[in-house]
Order: sequence, then structure tokens, then C-alpha cells
Amino acid sequence: MGSRIHVVGGGVIGLACAWELSRNGHGVTVCAPTPGRDGASWVAAGMLAPVTEAQFGESALTALLVEGAGRWPAFAAALEGATGHDVGYDTTGTVTVALDASDRASLDDLLAYQHTLGLEAHRRSASECRDLVPALSPALRGGIEVPGDHQVDNRALLGALAEACRGGGVTFVHSSVTALEAGPVLVLADGRRLGADHVVLAAGTGLRAIDGLGGTGLPSLRPVKGHILRLGAPDAVTPVPLLARTVRGLVHGRSVYLVPRRDGSVVVGATVEERGADTAVRAGAVHELLCDARAIVPGVDELELVEAATGLRPATPDNTPRIGWTARDGVIAAVGHYRNGILLAPLTAAAVVDLVGRRPVTPLIEALAPT
Amino acid sequence: MGSRIHVVGGGVIGLACAWELSRNGHGVTVCAPTPGRDGASWVAAGMLAPVTEAQFGESALTALLVEGAGRWPAFAAALEGATGHDVGYDTTGTVTVALDASDRASLDDLLAYQHTLGLEAHRRSASECRDLVPALSPALRGGIEVPGDHQVDNRALLGALAEACRGGGVTFVHSSVTALEAGPVLVLADGRRLGADHVVLAAGTGLRAIDGLGGTGLPSLRPVKGHILRLGAPDAVTPVPLLARTVRGLVHGRSVYLVPRRDGSVVVGATVEERGADTAVRAGAVHELLCDARAIVPGVDELELVEAATGLRPATPDNTPRIGWTARDGVIAAVGHYRNGILLAPLTAAAVVDLVGRRPVTPLIEALAPT
Repeated sequence: MGSRIHVVGGGVIGLACAWELSRNGHGVTVCAPTPGRDGASWVAAGMLAPVTEAQFGESALTALLVEGAGRWPAFAAALEGATGHDVGYDTTGTVTVALDASDRASLDDLLAYQHTLGLEAHRRSASECRDLVPALSPALRGGIEVPGDHQVDNRALLGALAEACRGGGVTFVHSSVTALEAGPVLVLADGRRLGADHVVLAAGTGLRAIDGLGGTGLPSLRPVKGHILRLGAPDAVTPVPLLARTVRGLVHGRSVYLVPRRDGSVVVGATVEERGADTAVRAGAVHELLCDARAIVPGVDELELVEAATGLRPATPDNTPRIGWTARDGVIAAVGHYRNGILLAPLTAAAVVDLVGRRPVTPLIEALAPT
Repeated sequence: MGSRIHVVGGGVIGLACAWELSRNGHGVTVCAPTPGRDGASWVAAGMLAPVTEAQFGESALTALLVEGAGRWPAFAAALEGATGHDVGYDTTGTVTVALDASDRASLDDLLAYQHTLGLEAHRRSASECRDLVPALSPALRGGIEVPGDHQVDNRALLGALAEACRGGGVTFVHSSVTALEAGPVLVLADGRRLGADHVVLAAGTGLRAIDGLGGTGLPSLRPVKGHILRLGAPDAVTPVPLLARTVRGLVHGRSVYLVPRRDGSVVVGATVEERGADTAVRAGAVHELLCDARAIVPGVDELELVEAATGLRPATPDNTPRIGWTARDGVIAAVGHYRNGILLAPLTAAAVVDLVGRRPVTPLIEALAPT
């Protein structure tokens, strides 16, 4: 027998959890103001990048990201099968390039670290990089090829997930949640109170506006601002797409990435800014992204600036998610995915299904329990 | 007795002509798809800058711009009186600054040229410039103060002109014009034909889509693309407006300007691009404007990017307007204002009123006759 479950949050984590729960026989409601358009997921680039996101000192997180990436082929196939929609899942791979000698040295350090973790990454000369990506600037100092870092079109993904939810009988309550009470009971912005067997908290930084989480054992989530640009390809200027694979770069020590979509457009991101909940699109951040993107791919200049947007990534104090039963009866957390929400959505959703079924989760997930 | 006059074009020239003609007793119709939101006028910055726009070898044009600027105080007062709307007419003055030594040398050449034309402009040291504009970068090489170059809020101006037209009994036909026939008769996009005593052609680059202008004697108008940015001032960050006067700059040989509005926002412009009728907002142009603006006013980084837009300035082969009777009976031209449409609108409208009344115009205007 399935349970009655309320999922709080309409981003990629909330929708993925809702869909997987509905596929497993539960009666699911999603509470979110604009499901499929919510939060950081909508603004994301959709990189599935455990290797190029590997950070010194975060090997446990990297292991989680690798595990998460392993879930993607089956997840994408199931979602496309359920909806008939192409979600832009692309396994062409990623190249990370260095602009100056210092950037090259940093990449070599990173490469050595990737190898100590057993990750697949190959040192490439500048001309080898340009063989892989002809649009690269001739001024680069070479880079790293990472065949295993892929991408998905985050907006196509969100649309497909929302449709899969509807097809699976998930009910949408288009409202924000203002409080969590014992029961568990959700209090909505319009005053309604919804009771359920279980609640899954998956609202990203939206969680900060919900009262009554004090007894959950969850750490506070800090919003980490990111700017992103969406650049379109005017047909007349770019009959051939500028890029065929994801390009990342170190540009005088700053990170930038360019993620090409199948329609020839390119997503350029992303700043990482500790500025609280500020969501204004700042001229300085737009300048920084354009500056760094065109330094490694000069053809960016001819693309059309279609959108400049910001999102708030939900980060815990240790930048690692919290997935598991909270200290409050019937309340599961799936929060704090920071830069990796898209990548970790399939793994997180599968874990939440196991948690609801009171089945054991893998040690990697167990380590993320909030309590 | 007034005439029946059709004005083609709903930008600043068309609306200014329509309003002045209606004030002089004529029955006026404006034909334009979206009057008050049309064309280059909507995208403009609104500088009234005969001195800082002075170009070597264009002394006749500069004389016209000086004459045009002289019409502004009375025009703004009349328009504000007629509508009760503030059009943001601001006479604080302009400072042009130099980034590097080569820019400083160029500004000194320009200053000498301005003085040969008898224009008021004062050499200022870097610290004198910062006294005038505290937000300037400390890295500048000084500049020129031009007290006589002013500004108007172009969008407030267009709104006020449209309202003044309505108040003056002007009829709006929300349609584009596809052809001019003898009569004169205008053929509209929906097939309607409108006859009148006189037609005033004031459609900027929109004129290029009108058939039947062959016999007018008008030169072809080329579209000169310009990118512009509108930057907002988030209250929390900028309790005091960043700028209190217009700042222009030479940045490694490139021109940029920053025009502050009364609400704390700043208009940054403008590229000058010979790219035909292309209106896409290009990443490279946005980068160039941001790069140059923040080089002279670093606080730009903290402003919000509210809008990035392009417009097509209507330019004749000699970059000088054509104002006068054409070779076609009953047809007056007021076209080709290029970078100076806002500045020249009052002078042009007054000239068109004189032309319709068959009164003599000043030699400066007479020199602009199309035939």
C-alpha cells in the first residue's frame, strides 16, 4: 500500500522525488508556487560533471557525484520513455582549458588530484583541445579532456519531470508553504493545512521561509548566488553551432563554463557569490561572465544575449546535501544540493523512495542523514 | 486655415512635428505601428550634446546641433506645460574623461577643435573631474567639462509628446505605411489609402520599407546599429545615485557614455555598428559597453542590468539630416537625424511648421533641403 506524501518544492529535486514516489505506488502532492519553474533548477546549466566539479578536500562529495552521474543514463531513458520528450541528455564529454601559465599549473594540479581519485581525465595540448573544439581561442595553454562529464537541458528536464508527474497522478498545489507542524501538517500561504503520512522537504533555499523546522535537525541553508547567461545563435551568423561539447575554462584563476544546447544556443555560467538572498542581475557579474567566456571562445561575441538571470543555490555549511529522515516524525529531507542538484536528482529521488519504504540506503546516502 | 497633414513615423521627430503642427492649427494624423515606442528614439540615451558630439570635419552639422540645443529650454517648458509631465530635462552638464595617455591626447585635440568652433569646453585635471563626479575611477587622465551639453529622458519625452499630440487633437493611425503615391496618398499595411494636403516623412529607417519614394530626391537611409544598456540602482546598494551628471569617456580609443536618470538609473551607450538592419543584442557589444563603462566608473558593477537593447539610427550618406520639401508635390522630409534625433526634434518640428506655412526657414535648415 502506498503512503500519502507531500513534497515541498517544485525544482528538480522535488519533481524527481515526486515522480519516483508516484512510480512506486504512493499518492503524491507537490506544493510549490510555480512547479517546474522554481528556484535554482530553472537557472542552472544542466552539467552532469562529477569530475570537473571535483574540489580539493571534498572527496566524499566527489564520490557522491560519481554515484549520481551513474544513475543518469537509466533515469533519462525512463523519463524520455514516460513522456516522449527529449531532455537533451548529451554524453559528448567536456574539455577544461587554461588561459595562462598559472591556469595551466592549476589544471595540472587538478588533473593529478582527479587521478588520485581514480577519475578519468586526460591532459591535452592546446592543439589537441582545438581538435576537440575548433572554436577555442588560439591563445590557450591546453587543458584536460573529461569524457565522462555530460549534460542535460535543465529546462527540458523540468518540463518532462512535471509532465511525468502529471501522468503519474501527482497532484500540484500551486502555493508556497509557510510552516511545518507536527503530524506532519503543511500550512500553506493561503492558510490551508494539508496533512499526510510523510512530508519530503525539497524546497532548496525556499526552505528558509518555512517556519517550524527547528526540531528537524537540519542545518541552516545559505543562498549562494549565481549569475548565468543564455546566448542564442542567430541563424545568419552561425549556420554551424559554435560548440559541440561543454567547455570549461580557468581564466586568470576564475572559472567559467559554456554549455552548448542542441539548438545552437550556449549557456554561460556561473558566478559563485556569497551575497545573501540578493537576486538582482548585476552589471559586474554579467561583464565577468562575458569577459571570461570570450577569452576562451572568441565567437561568443557574435551570439545573441537572450537572457541574463540569477539563481540561489541552497548550500549547507559543509556544501554537502542532507538526505534522510529528520528528527521530526514523518519528515524526510532532500536539501542542500548546492551546485549539484541536477546531477544528484536521480540518486536523491531513488534514495527518498527507499527511505519512505523503510529500506536501507547506500552508505554514501546514509552519511548524508540530517540526524 | 490649417491643412490636413499626415505624419509618417511615431518616433521623436514624427511626434514633435505632429504636436507643433497641431499647435499651429493644422489637422494632423500620425501613421505609426506603435507611436511613442517606435524606432531609435525609444532606445536612445537622450543626450543633448552639440559640443561633445562635435566631429572633425563636420562643423556645419555642429552649427546645426548648437542651434538645435538652443531650442530645448523653451520646447521642454512648453511640453511640460501642455502635459504636466516631467520629461527629465537636465542642464547639469557633461564631463568627458580620458582613460590612457593616448585618450588624453585625443581629448586635447578635440578640445582645441571645440575652441576653434567657439564652443564652451574646459580642460580639467583628473582630480578636478573627480570633484565634479566622485564616482570616477582614480586611474583616469583627466578630461573636459562641457557645461552646455545636457540631457532629457527620452522615454518620458516620447510619452509626453504622445500625450501632447492627443491633447492637441492629433489622430493616431496604428499602422505602418507601405507606399507613397501621388496626391499625396499614403497606402497602409492593411490596404487603406489616406489622402491629405501634405505628408511629412519622419519614419527614420522605417522609410526603407515604403515604396514610391523614388521621385522624392531623398538619399537612401542606412541603418546604423547601436547597442545600449539600462542599468538600475538597487536601493540597498546605492542609497545615493552613482552619478549626478552625464559622463562620457574615451577608453583606449573607444567612446562610451553614462547618462544618469533622476531615479538613480544609468543609460550606457552606445555602439556604432555598420551591420545593416540587424537588431540582435550581441554578447560582444554588451561586453564592450560594460567593459568601457566600468573602466571609467567602477561602481557600474553594482548596478542592475535592467535592459540591453538595440536601435537603428537613420543615416544619410553624409550623416546630415534632410529637412525640407521633396521633389514630390506636397511631401516634406524630416529624416536622417542619425545620432541627433532627440536633440534636433524641436528645431526640426519648428522648421516643418514653417515649411507647411510656406514661410522661409533659416539658412541652416535651408541647407538641408532634399532637392
